[in-house]
Amino acid sequence: MTTKQLVTQIRKKKSFLCIGLDVDLQKIPEYVLQDEDPIFSFNKAIIDATHDLCVAYKPNIAFYEAYGIKGWQALKKTIDYLNEHHPEIFTIADAKRGDIGNTSTMYAKAFFDDMNFDSITIAPYMGRDSVEPFLAFNDKHTILLALTSNDGAFDFQTKKIENKELYKHVLETSRTYRNSDNLMYVVGATKAEYLEDIRHIIPNSFLLVPGVGAQGGSLQEVCKYGMTKDVGLLVNSSRGIIYASSNKDFARAAAQKAKEIQEQMEIELNALSN
Amino acid sequence: MTTKQLVTQIRKKKSFLCIGLDVDLQKIPEYVLQDEDPIFSFNKAIIDATHDLCVAYKPNIAFYEAYGIKGWQALKKTIDYLNEHHPEIFTIADAKRGDIGNTSTMYAKAFFDDMNFDSITIAPYMGRDSVEPFLAFNDKHTILLALTSNDGAFDFQTKKIENKELYKHVLETSRTYRNSDNLMYVVGATKAEYLEDIRHIIPNSFLLVPGVGAQGGSLQEVCKYGMTKDVGLLVNSSRGIIYASSNKDFARAAAQKAKEIQEQMEIELNALSN
Repeated sequence: MTTKQLVTQIRKKKSFLCIGLDVDLQKIPEYVLQDEDPIFSFNKAIIDATHDLCVAYKPNIAFYEAYGIKGWQALKKTIDYLNEHHPEIFTIADAKRGDIGNTSTMYAKAFFDDMNFDSITIAPYMGRDSVEPFLAFNDKHTILLALTSNDGAFDFQTKKIENKELYKHVLETSRTYRNSDNLMYVVGATKAEYLEDIRHIIPNSFLLVPGVGAQGGSLQEVCKYGMTKDVGLLVNSSRGIIYASSNKDFARAAAQKAKEIQEQMEIELNALSN
Repeated sequence: MTTKQLVTQIRKKKSFLCIGLDVDLQKIPEYVLQDEDPIFSFNKAIIDATHDLCVAYKPNIAFYEAYGIKGWQALKKTIDYLNEHHPEIFTIADAKRGDIGNTSTMYAKAFFDDMNFDSITIAPYMGRDSVEPFLAFNDKHTILLALTSNDGAFDFQTKKIENKELYKHVLETSRTYRNSDNLMYVVGATKAEYLEDIRHIIPNSFLLVPGVGAQGGSLQEVCKYGMTKDVGLLVNSSRGIIYASSNKDFARAAAQKAKEIQEQMEIELNALSN
């Protein structure tokens, strides 16, 4: 999917919501566990109930890997279901991979070719030759970790190199990578005021913003400092939506939560148009 | 496996060789492709021919993920084969994972519990709460990326924060993490002289050293600057060993290459004892 197509979807659905499909078998309704593939059953119910309210889904790959081969089968069924029934949805493999050249190419093939995700999250620590293999794919997007929303972000990401934080070096240096137009960035919402500085470095890039809701960030603050004329934001919510209820009404409850966020986003998008 | 058990194996086998099982179906002998599970067949042949010459095997997970569910099945068969037939071998999941707390726990369960690897490689960018979930497992080892052997290492890892390179901050900060005794570190052999400084920060930790051979590092230099009284080194070779021949004699050729390296290692270990 191209960035332009993503922006068109955002304007059409009046939403820049991404729903994180982080399925934990200990948290989903018990009766779903009786299904042959409970992870896929849960995902399908969530997708069927929420796909009009969001523009992206983001399975965190760890939650699938944790269940071994069955987990990978559930992931494959989920991405296949999305690509077949909802090709207008932007799909994100939240994998946080990163390795040297030929190995990165293997990861890129796995997620972009075999599973046909639109994008993947990547850790920047190993630098240029760990990122460029992902950028080489047309109409696929590499979402680089810049400033994450966890406490550990302060260990290294915010440390200063020549009076500028490491995450800003990541933003600047990555702009020099080949095919850098295919880059997006993870920026945690718990530090919304940092977005002003970030927009000076990358005025137009799309940002994937976790940490709104459960992790404490404010949607209004994120929009105030991070929104561009083409929106430029995907705001993720995972647990707040998919675990809104642990009863038979879980999908309806998820849709209700997604609708609440979508309505706030519609206000922000209307303000942008005016 | 405990570190002490690993050191005992090194002294017994007179080897600190780790063999990287980075299986690429385009590089293995053609006739192996006719097997039902060619990746496992190839790995089994390599393991059967080389397990007396090395103390560790390191499958790079990307190479398995690239083949989807079949790749994961081959990985599972490989680690099960190692644990069943060669429990004295130290196993490394070269996964370079890293995510926030509960997600890291999912990854840790996948590799430590379900697959029963002895260790996993982890990227440090997300800091403390992305690493500690791995460190919580007893007798399991978390191998943190410090200084990698690729060109991109110079993008961020060697940049100075308060007159000290980022990778040294990673070494120092990680020593303050809970259960930091379970840490080992990846340090690329292409910068062997850096090992002297590194040993001032982490005098005793085990280092996983890639980049000897194909990537240009020298075993003698690595030992000169990096060896401790308890050895403290695992030196990895992947392609140089497993693709030593693309003919029917590939396993024998791999053993030959492994033997050459083991003999050099024996010289270094003897020098250490004297």
